[in-house]
Amino acid sequence: MNDSRAQVREVGLRDGLQMVKTILSAEQKLEWCRRMVAAGCTEIEVTSFVPPRIVPQFADSDEVARGALTIAGLHASALVPNLKGAQRAFDAGLKKVHYVLSASNEHNLKNVRRSTAESVDDFSNIIAARNESGRQDIKLGAGVATAFGCTISGHVDEQHVLRLVETLLKAGADEIAIADTVGYAHPGQVRKLMRQVLALTGDLPVTCHFHDTRGLGLANVVAALDAGVRAFDSSLGGLGGCPFAPNATGNINTEDTVFLLESEGMRTGIDIDALLAIREQVASWLPGEPFAGAIARAGLPKGFVSLTM
Amino acid sequence: MNDSRAQVREVGLRDGLQMVKTILSAEQKLEWCRRMVAAGCTEIEVTSFVPPRIVPQFADSDEVARGALTIAGLHASALVPNLKGAQRAFDAGLKKVHYVLSASNEHNLKNVRRSTAESVDDFSNIIAARNESGRQDIKLGAGVATAFGCTISGHVDEQHVLRLVETLLKAGADEIAIADTVGYAHPGQVRKLMRQVLALTGDLPVTCHFHDTRGLGLANVVAALDAGVRAFDSSLGGLGGCPFAPNATGNINTEDTVFLLESEGMRTGIDIDALLAIREQVASWLPGEPFAGAIARAGLPKGFVSLTM
Repeated sequence: MNDSRAQVREVGLRDGLQMVKTILSAEQKLEWCRRMVAAGCTEIEVTSFVPPRIVPQFADSDEVARGALTIAGLHASALVPNLKGAQRAFDAGLKKVHYVLSASNEHNLKNVRRSTAESVDDFSNIIAARNESGRQDIKLGAGVATAFGCTISGHVDEQHVLRLVETLLKAGADEIAIADTVGYAHPGQVRKLMRQVLALTGDLPVTCHFHDTRGLGLANVVAALDAGVRAFDSSLGGLGGCPFAPNATGNINTEDTVFLLESEGMRTGIDIDALLAIREQVASWLPGEPFAGAIARAGLPKGFVSLTM
Repeated sequence: MNDSRAQVREVGLRDGLQMVKTILSAEQKLEWCRRMVAAGCTEIEVTSFVPPRIVPQFADSDEVARGALTIAGLHASALVPNLKGAQRAFDAGLKKVHYVLSASNEHNLKNVRRSTAESVDDFSNIIAARNESGRQDIKLGAGVATAFGCTISGHVDEQHVLRLVETLLKAGADEIAIADTVGYAHPGQVRKLMRQVLALTGDLPVTCHFHDTRGLGLANVVAALDAGVRAFDSSLGGLGGCPFAPNATGNINTEDTVFLLESEGMRTGIDIDALLAIREQVASWLPGEPFAGAIARAGLPKGFVSLTM
């Protein structure tokens, strides 16, 4: 990837929808995907392969994944919490699968009822399953959640996060994602950790996943850019709250993230006006859900020219 | 000022209140000031010496300024738009007076019905009036508004802003403030401009004044910190909209700014919990006004320790 290009991966269909009351139809989700691709956003985490009884919103994950694979130009991925979810993602035909574990053992226990060490072992099992299936074309990403702090255990040690990244790379991860799951990160911390992560990952893709819970989401993007990160997860309209912080805003907002990146001289390939139109459409499907975002409220600066156009 | 200290100047009583429907009493304004000082925020822009028919909220500016001067520990300042306002501020006994003009000629014409060049001349008249009065103890700050862009004229040339700063310094400014009045600035632009401003100002204080209109307010604080800026204007609860962008958020939020600065290792001397209590008090006086802010909504991170405490 050229130094002046940045990638924005839409996670509104996954991280955004998991907190939402209204259950979207598979056709609505696919319409959202199609319009994102038309707007220039080709990386989308389309669903999560969790048990439907835990998150009913994702009961249609097979249908959504298979539908997404028919959309030209879309690089569809899905989140999986365990080997069983990974097998379902493989069976659906996805070529990008993201596994996630928490740096905080307490958070991991609460989230997936296993220790972080057990989740690391599970990632090795997923890698082995992929390899045994002969599907070497499937890219397996590994994400470290609560990498900047945890609502349960508080401080998360930077060296612990770096050791986890090393372990995941050794296990065979094709991509590393570093996530501020609960919105605890601050810019100096991001810059420092991400420089060290990038020193470990070499040529492998690295994505930052920030929440704007405490208002520092976009400041953290700038810090990660400084460190050399060029890929970010974000959610249309900032959808996606935090189960441990009621009323808190969710993921960083896709429209605002694209505006920031383009302002900073990074080409995203994404049309902000088209995003704003999709946002209106999705908001009409989710009555009562809070849609955050500054650009949707205030508009682009007069004379703003996207590098992408 | 030590490199690890940062100053936060409360402008909620000035920039925040000028857009608000409810007119606070002078006693409420002074109670706000007293509580800010008790919380550790000793720099407050307490009022604006504009004609009362233009902004009725500031009809009590003499009373507020005189009252503020009786509060122990408070460094009270006021904004003045012209020589007449400056004379009133001098007469009230204030020792810090801030004059502001717009880098954008169109914005200046709309704001104070004069060209930027005429406003520069007026600043020289204010300096002369201060000198003739023998009140050399009064510090005269000069602020450049719309320094990062203008809702009327769009792009504002960086070299034009730097020449204005040079002119204001030559005229005798004791402090320079650089303001993103309409929320157009982005971090790379801030870092680049502020490095050059600091190269001009030498040992004189320099303050950045950001609005969060397009979500980049705190990211811009980080960029200004990188450039070496150590003083920031902010408004409790993010009070203060922009007359040219309805529904847009206003000044950067004081609580969130202090949280950011302390997270980044800067001592502000300000107690965030005390700010949150003042915010509740002020919000109760201003029914229906939007109070923005992430920390008020989500709380501080678990285990967060202020450097100030």
